[in-house]
Amino acid sequence: MSTINFKIVLHTLGMLLLFNGAFMIFPVVASYYYNESITLELTFSLIVTVFSGLFMMFSTRKHDKNIAQREGYLIVTLGWLFMVLTGMLPYVFTKMIPEFSNAFFETMSGYTTTGASILNDIEVMPNSILLWRSLTHWIGGMGIIVLTVAILPLFGIGGMQLFNAEAPGPGADKLKPRIADTAKRLWLIYFIYTVIEAILLKIAGMGYFDAVNHALSTLSTGGFSTKNDSVAFWNDSPMIQYIIILFMFLAGTNFVMSYFAFKFDFKKIWQNEEFRWFLSFILVFSSLTTLVIFFKADLDLNSIPHPRVIGEFESSIRHSFFQVLAVVTTTGFVTSDFTLWTPFLTILFFGLFFLGGSAGSTSGGIKVVRHVILIKNGFQEFRRVLHPNAILPVRYKGKSVDQKIVFTIQGFFILYALSFIIGAVVLASTGLDFETAIGGAASSLGNVGPAFGKLSPVDNFSGLTNFGKLWCSFLMLLGRLELFTVLIIFSPYFWRNR
Amino acid sequence: MSTINFKIVLHTLGMLLLFNGAFMIFPVVASYYYNESITLELTFSLIVTVFSGLFMMFSTRKHDKNIAQREGYLIVTLGWLFMVLTGMLPYVFTKMIPEFSNAFFETMSGYTTTGASILNDIEVMPNSILLWRSLTHWIGGMGIIVLTVAILPLFGIGGMQLFNAEAPGPGADKLKPRIADTAKRLWLIYFIYTVIEAILLKIAGMGYFDAVNHALSTLSTGGFSTKNDSVAFWNDSPMIQYIIILFMFLAGTNFVMSYFAFKFDFKKIWQNEEFRWFLSFILVFSSLTTLVIFFKADLDLNSIPHPRVIGEFESSIRHSFFQVLAVVTTTGFVTSDFTLWTPFLTILFFGLFFLGGSAGSTSGGIKVVRHVILIKNGFQEFRRVLHPNAILPVRYKGKSVDQKIVFTIQGFFILYALSFIIGAVVLASTGLDFETAIGGAASSLGNVGPAFGKLSPVDNFSGLTNFGKLWCSFLMLLGRLELFTVLIIFSPYFWRNR
Ligand SMILES: [K+]
Ligand SMILES: [K+]
Repeated sequence: MSTINFKIVLHTLGMLLLFNGAFMIFPVVASYYYNESITLELTFSLIVTVFSGLFMMFSTRKHDKNIAQREGYLIVTLGWLFMVLTGMLPYVFTKMIPEFSNAFFETMSGYTTTGASILNDIEVMPNSILLWRSLTHWIGGMGIIVLTVAILPLFGIGGMQLFNAEAPGPGADKLKPRIADTAKRLWLIYFIYTVIEAILLKIAGMGYFDAVNHALSTLSTGGFSTKNDSVAFWNDSPMIQYIIILFMFLAGTNFVMSYFAFKFDFKKIWQNEEFRWFLSFILVFSSLTTLVIFFKADLDLNSIPHPRVIGEFESSIRHSFFQVLAVVTTTGFVTSDFTLWTPFLTILFFGLFFLGGSAGSTSGGIKVVRHVILIKNGFQEFRRVLHPNAILPVRYKGKSVDQKIVFTIQGFFILYALSFIIGAVVLASTGLDFETAIGGAASSLGNVGPAFGKLSPVDNFSGLTNFGKLWCSFLMLLGRLELFTVLIIFSPYFWRNR
Repeated sequence: MSTINFKIVLHTLGMLLLFNGAFMIFPVVASYYYNESITLELTFSLIVTVFSGLFMMFSTRKHDKNIAQREGYLIVTLGWLFMVLTGMLPYVFTKMIPEFSNAFFETMSGYTTTGASILNDIEVMPNSILLWRSLTHWIGGMGIIVLTVAILPLFGIGGMQLFNAEAPGPGADKLKPRIADTAKRLWLIYFIYTVIEAILLKIAGMGYFDAVNHALSTLSTGGFSTKNDSVAFWNDSPMIQYIIILFMFLAGTNFVMSYFAFKFDFKKIWQNEEFRWFLSFILVFSSLTTLVIFFKADLDLNSIPHPRVIGEFESSIRHSFFQVLAVVTTTGFVTSDFTLWTPFLTILFFGLFFLGGSAGSTSGGIKVVRHVILIKNGFQEFRRVLHPNAILPVRYKGKSVDQKIVFTIQGFFILYALSFIIGAVVLASTGLDFETAIGGAASSLGNVGPAFGKLSPVDNFSGLTNFGKLWCSFLMLLGRLELFTVLIIFSPYFWRNR
């Protein structure tokens, strides 16, 4: 390793800002269209972002083309940070979220697709601002697809090599074109899904604007809504909620599966082990929740109205599937306050905060594939104790998994647990009680959104101290970039030249 | 592997019952001495236990001497269970704890050195019953020493091979005599420490009876007290509490270190890496707690009186060191309700519930050595990501640790986390709130004793449902026997003959 090629890092970051600024055209147009009198401020945000990007690119135009691992890490982490620092400008310049910590939190929550908010009244916000909020999710989701396709498998972070093996594209020998090609295919699916969901939501009775925003929030597993009550606003429209249930499921599924589906290759989907596990987890936990809600819980204890449009049982099924999917896919939409159902479901959902969706989706959390490998390895561990000399590898998708990958996944899990407990301790030091601190840390790290206690699905993060908001923002970034990508920059080995 | 030699398993269990029955002489004598009118019932417990043991031994006297791994696991887990089933007889026969679930819980809490209680008023109990309670701790502590010296390292459970390497005794080639020899040496230290602590406590002002009971509870890191307020009863006698602080520290230290100390080989102690880490953890966390208590917390918010005998600062130091040691060594004695100090300290202590003392001590939890290996491996993981082709082993005590051992320790940690979350979910299903369910599971699994919420240091476990009590008892056993030893019996591989 030689010294880090900072010029190419800055150059790439400049390109990202250009891209970010380009997306700001949408809120500018929205503000103009809805006559919101903040068009000038939004245009100014766009100009500042684009010019910052141009300046960074121009000042580093003479750069060495050499790009290696360390530059990659810097680009990913700093990239997210620079997106946030410019992406918060529309909030700050329009004075809709004037304080730094609030605007930073809301924007980080956007790009990391967490969906936690500090807004006490979402519905008073101008449409242009709400659209930008949803767009930060959608841009973040695009970033995650690149991260999963290109960065994590290449660098071997947390066992994501397992994902790379199944991504579609030209032969494995042509690595670079393959990655670009795969990313493009998956982006296309992401885009098509968003359009279809928006159309379906409109047909089901949502307004155009709400339909677009919720589609942007669903596919990115983000969770920002245009309503104070989130999707519970449509508790009298089961069809709307079933559409969101379907698209949350798709957003939590490996996009490569959708690629197979578009090619009518359903056999490949069914043969995919992670998909089967993901589906099973959803079905098992949703059915269990349905039974508990139907027999034990009173949905009306919620502060949210729960009209039984089709009947008691349908209501139990719908809210169970909705909230299980919202938590497992880490979307974080709310139709009902799951922390008020029963003590058992509260802790069960707390456990689900650590599950996560599939690798190759936009969901956060630990991810199904890692859990499956760890569970299988756990069973093997018992056999290994009984037969110390036998070689007993973990089998996944019909193949033996290299012990090194299992080792890396174990390391990832432990680092996740450690980040969670340190995250909770630091949050508690800002004065949060036990349940709130633990829930807030799990939710931020897993990019879920709602949490427990004073950060329940019907509350928001506005009551945190400034430091608390920044700390949660850090946890969101940490979880979103799969821990290592962020933490490695803080390690002395990273900066050592040799 | 052939079929399991059940006869030798039963024979050994019979010997354990004989041993258990022999210890019942102490409560019998105590009852007679204190004129407690339950001497007959206690004698009956002794007779039933001894005769059960004799019957089991006699009916299996013609047994094959062959003993292998699977018999070892059965003996350990069933051994603890049989000790509990006979050890609860004194409570049941004297009708002091008449219900099965309560008596089972209290006895399991005793032998697993957990120290959680279902007794609402400890001080109304006859001395003989209180002595038996403390003795169950002490017997359990002896069992743990054998487990650590003989079973865990041999079977390679959770990386305990690392412990075996440092145990004193004859050359490694003579394995069997070495194990017996090591166990005897460590038992002797355990016994001597108990006697010394009892004498010191008496000198410091405790009554004879209380001194003996607290010495039995300290060295086993058990935590049963003879007072409703636990050691807080002596909050006006700092000297008593400092003595207990010292012996909690010794009980949480590898007894092999004490063996070196008795041989005046202090260099070996200082060179021991786990000892240095254990000491550092205690000092860091206690100092931090001292500062927070002194500047932020109000000790008088406790329901327990906190006379400032020597002054405010001394009080902060004493309660900090006492509670940090009580939790880290998993003794669980109480001088102050740490869940009422500050939100930060509540979560910090929750984290400490997972730390544990040293390997080769009587403490529960995950243990310092495992954390150290995992933390070191975590740092190496960053270097491995940056240098994928370099071989970067974990170094412990100046030597490279076999990757297999690190792998096993990772597996142990993950299984511990899984047991904890399932433990909490099941506890919540009995109706416990978030904080209580999570705290109760962590405390039971780590054999700590007090927990959080409605199971705080000033509460007890009597409010749990019968199922809740049995579930906590299971978690105690699971944690005490280092997970694998218990769970392996439930695995189908265990019962497969081949
Ligand atoms: K989310
Ligand atoms: K204990």
